[in-house]
Amino acid sequence: MARDTRERILDISLGMFNAQGEPNVTTNHIADELGISPGNLYYHFRNKDDIVEHLFARYEARIDGVLRLPDDRAPTLEDIWLQLHRVFESLWSYRFLYRDLVDILARNRKLKLRFARIMQRASTSATELLHGLVRAGIMRASADEIRALAENILLIATFWMNFNAVRGGKAEADEADLNCGIHQVMMLVAPFLRDAERFHLNTLAATYVR
Amino acid sequence: MARDTRERILDISLGMFNAQGEPNVTTNHIADELGISPGNLYYHFRNKDDIVEHLFARYEARIDGVLRLPDDRAPTLEDIWLQLHRVFESLWSYRFLYRDLVDILARNRKLKLRFARIMQRASTSATELLHGLVRAGIMRASADEIRALAENILLIATFWMNFNAVRGGKAEADEADLNCGIHQVMMLVAPFLRDAERFHLNTLAATYVR
Repeated sequence: MARDTRERILDISLGMFNAQGEPNVTTNHIADELGISPGNLYYHFRNKDDIVEHLFARYEARIDGVLRLPDDRAPTLEDIWLQLHRVFESLWSYRFLYRDLVDILARNRKLKLRFARIMQRASTSATELLHGLVRAGIMRASADEIRALAENILLIATFWMNFNAVRGGKAEADEADLNCGIHQVMMLVAPFLRDAERFHLNTLAATYVR
Repeated sequence: MARDTRERILDISLGMFNAQGEPNVTTNHIADELGISPGNLYYHFRNKDDIVEHLFARYEARIDGVLRLPDDRAPTLEDIWLQLHRVFESLWSYRFLYRDLVDILARNRKLKLRFARIMQRASTSATELLHGLVRAGIMRASADEIRALAENILLIATFWMNFNAVRGGKAEADEADLNCGIHQVMMLVAPFLRDAERFHLNTLAATYVR
């Protein structure tokens, strides 16, 4: 029962953070929304940062699952696009983190270190996938090019929502923006592919643009 | 004389914002640093946002100058690298803006609109440069590829400093980070170049990495 309340607090908080922006939601708002007393909420979580940390742990577990590569065979292009999709879906599910990323990490040293570790794992995973494509003859790129490409993929995935916000997009990101993010990453990889795959990818990528 | 004080306030504010982060600097700190009374400072500027807006106007004028293309001849690769350098130098001179970009723009609707217009002009300028390279036969890329490439260049230039911060870099960005940003943009463009230029660029880009 207590465990249920705990999970419900996290679910409702995630929804409110995503919809309203984490800085605009207080523990009182969350308790109100759940129809419980602030005291009951504080029984489960010390403060809002405690809630944010637990949501971050959920996010971390999810992204770690997504970043796992098939270990029984060489990765294919389809593996990349599937992983790319699942990464962007994970970012979208926890978009409050990404919208105020710089702020949230500046405020919480523990999360800053954990986020840096996620980035490290994502970088390793992207680099391995890309080297796999080169070994399979699907892609042509030097080790330097792969290193730079993996960094650019990470940067674009991480700041895609912020980029839309600062260039004057709609106040609220939606799933069409997400597809544009996936499109931008595909277009990063495209020029390194063999002609047949590059052509196929450009056709596929076009379906992602509004 | 009054005009001198005004300019001195802006110069000192820029230095303090860049060194300490804009959110950590108050008008009192600025007055202290200048050895003037807060009243004297308020004679020149209504509040800190007023100072930020004037610094933003300086930045806007500078970046507009940098984005201007040679209009008497087709752009060359050297034009691109020179422009890229000058863009990153401008970002560096006003790095307080970029470090807290999402925050500063969320707080000030006027700056948000003006920043969106800068992004629009930067996007047009990058797109024109890239099309110029295609017309000159230096680069091979479709219109879709150029559109995506211009967006990715903008995104990387805008969030390069934030990216370094969230992936656990040093607390303070320095000029070596700036060079890495330039390197990352070069590596975006490289795969679209003719083999000779791509080889030349990869050699050049390598000198930018620590």
